[in-house]
Amino acid sequence: MNLASVHLHVVPEFSPGLEGVVAAQTAVSEVDGANGRLIYRGGYLIEDLAPVVSYEEVAYLLWHGDLPDKAELDALHMLMAAARALNKAGRGALMATDPATDPMDVLRTVVSAQGACKTLVKPTLDQAIALTAVFPTIVAAAHRRRLGHEIVDPRDDLSHAANLLWMMEGKEPEVGRVHWLESYLVLLADHGLNASTFAARVIASTGSDLTSSVVGAIGALKGPAHGGATLAARTMLDKIGSAENAEKWLREAHARHERFAGFGHRVYRTYDPRAKILREMAVKASPELHRTAARTEELALQILHEAHPERPNATNVDFWASVVLTGAGIPKDLFTCIFATSRVVGWTAHVLESLGDLRIIRPASQWIGPEPGKKPLARAKR
Amino acid sequence: MNLASVHLHVVPEFSPGLEGVVAAQTAVSEVDGANGRLIYRGGYLIEDLAPVVSYEEVAYLLWHGDLPDKAELDALHMLMAAARALNKAGRGALMATDPATDPMDVLRTVVSAQGACKTLVKPTLDQAIALTAVFPTIVAAAHRRRLGHEIVDPRDDLSHAANLLWMMEGKEPEVGRVHWLESYLVLLADHGLNASTFAARVIASTGSDLTSSVVGAIGALKGPAHGGATLAARTMLDKIGSAENAEKWLREAHARHERFAGFGHRVYRTYDPRAKILREMAVKASPELHRTAARTEELALQILHEAHPERPNATNVDFWASVVLTGAGIPKDLFTCIFATSRVVGWTAHVLESLGDLRIIRPASQWIGPEPGKKPLARAKR
Repeated sequence: MNLASVHLHVVPEFSPGLEGVVAAQTAVSEVDGANGRLIYRGGYLIEDLAPVVSYEEVAYLLWHGDLPDKAELDALHMLMAAARALNKAGRGALMATDPATDPMDVLRTVVSAQGACKTLVKPTLDQAIALTAVFPTIVAAAHRRRLGHEIVDPRDDLSHAANLLWMMEGKEPEVGRVHWLESYLVLLADHGLNASTFAARVIASTGSDLTSSVVGAIGALKGPAHGGATLAARTMLDKIGSAENAEKWLREAHARHERFAGFGHRVYRTYDPRAKILREMAVKASPELHRTAARTEELALQILHEAHPERPNATNVDFWASVVLTGAGIPKDLFTCIFATSRVVGWTAHVLESLGDLRIIRPASQWIGPEPGKKPLARAKR
Repeated sequence: MNLASVHLHVVPEFSPGLEGVVAAQTAVSEVDGANGRLIYRGGYLIEDLAPVVSYEEVAYLLWHGDLPDKAELDALHMLMAAARALNKAGRGALMATDPATDPMDVLRTVVSAQGACKTLVKPTLDQAIALTAVFPTIVAAAHRRRLGHEIVDPRDDLSHAANLLWMMEGKEPEVGRVHWLESYLVLLADHGLNASTFAARVIASTGSDLTSSVVGAIGALKGPAHGGATLAARTMLDKIGSAENAEKWLREAHARHERFAGFGHRVYRTYDPRAKILREMAVKASPELHRTAARTEELALQILHEAHPERPNATNVDFWASVVLTGAGIPKDLFTCIFATSRVVGWTAHVLESLGDLRIIRPASQWIGPEPGKKPLARAKR
């Protein structure tokens, strides 16, 4: 405790990063870090769910609490397909950005424009569906503008994942690539009270609207310690270049005290279950990169264990996600946008859940400045 | 504690709204709620500082930790004046919004566009200055577009506050109105770990950029439980209409279990020092509304005390801010935007401070869903 604050009031202990502080009760998802389990709404283990559901089904599950039947799924598909186009404000904001802009900044800006309203509207499920539906349109448009290509309009006969690849490339995507992308979208759709989801809940806690929560969450996801980590993992693999070069590169990087991208997590104390699924998928999705990555993983874990045997240094989801997204044909500068395209379902599900017991999230702070009221106002200085 | 979670791991107690949980150490400002004191960086009490400083001086103080001398202040004024114009992306996003859009949604979108970059940039003081400088331009433009008027360009010979009124109205503002607006901007510039500032710090904690933090904070401020409260206070005063009608209106509203806007605060247990200053200012700024407000305050405190003698139900800043802003000629639908125009200095000062020890803010959650892995996957349903 800082001494300067003692005379003010009794201050409870500071929890850096709010580690271990319970900031919400939730039934949307649970990260059981001790046992390496990720539980989605309804109590489903991610490894049971992922192989058998589409992204739309997972979205329905996280929003409603139960998997959809055929009619419910068809209805959701129709709602989402109808909300894929940009409105006037969204399209205008998109076209006003410099084509070279970071796609995450385009996404943040265009979602904000697309969701702008005349008056404050309480978050609704319809808005959650509409915001989720439009993410691929913005990401694909940002991508094509960056390359100097014409924007491709969405198609309403394709699934969420297939339509994203369609709009990025302007041609029918192969089934395998749709499958890998969709699996990634399913696996990343929610993950407890991660920083972007928490940002969304903080914003919602003031009674603000859903667009504001989602726009804030995009901003949080952008950081390299959060959504940006998938790109960092791929960048590291690119530098390593081959399985044969892995040992030399990693030993040298370790000697320079560089962190290995894609290892360690705040919550998991064992292997991330999503990483396990993606690791298997990577064999087929991206055989060449898988070879490099598998050797890198083996050595990185060994080196980290030698240096810190007491630390739980398991592979995290970003490491293997970078390989599977590569196999799905996603350019690496879009990795964080694709993460956002998946996680928006979790963000909105958390906000909708929080409406049941809305209480402003307003923590305390600890004063570490000088004792108040002692310093003369240095008017003479001026 | 929820029973379903017991088998997962030992979960610490849930802190609703993170009340009393210390989420940051800061020397930017301190809300000493027990003693009704607000301390700005350097240890200055708000009541000592507010009567003698300009908004630019307070901005300098919150960013640098000390008040500027003449040369430092002139340099800041030049930097801010030079950053008042919208860039191409900002202007394009502005012109793409429907003129009837909520000005807070315009602000969120145009700040996002204005601050968009080609690659991720670490937050800097220069960016903080540029973002702060452009807020009045966006707010005034949103206002004039809503009224169907031409946008008025910023002037570099005016102070931050005077230039805002100039761009809103296209004519030289009276000195008194500039003073009342500027006093408000000084008083609201920072306030500990309020929800929008906390949102900004959560976003920054992932290593994201300053624009993302500020855009998220705008979204959080928009909520009626936060920045929207000033408008709510004014709306209540409008409904009351006159000092003579206050008793009847308040008694009836209380009987309907309506909350009185402008009373109570998470942290203050006594009179908000900013409300005290604004209350005095309101006598001259808005004599008519002051009469209604003074009688309303007297009765509201009396009724609240009768109903809950155990609760500390003091007047908060929003109540008297709504009267002073009215006197400064700010239309009530811009109140939240003007709040943001002040608080952006606090948001950016907090983000810059947090860079010194950046650790991702990622709290825990408590699972309240069904026991994991028990429910069969209802594939038959489909």
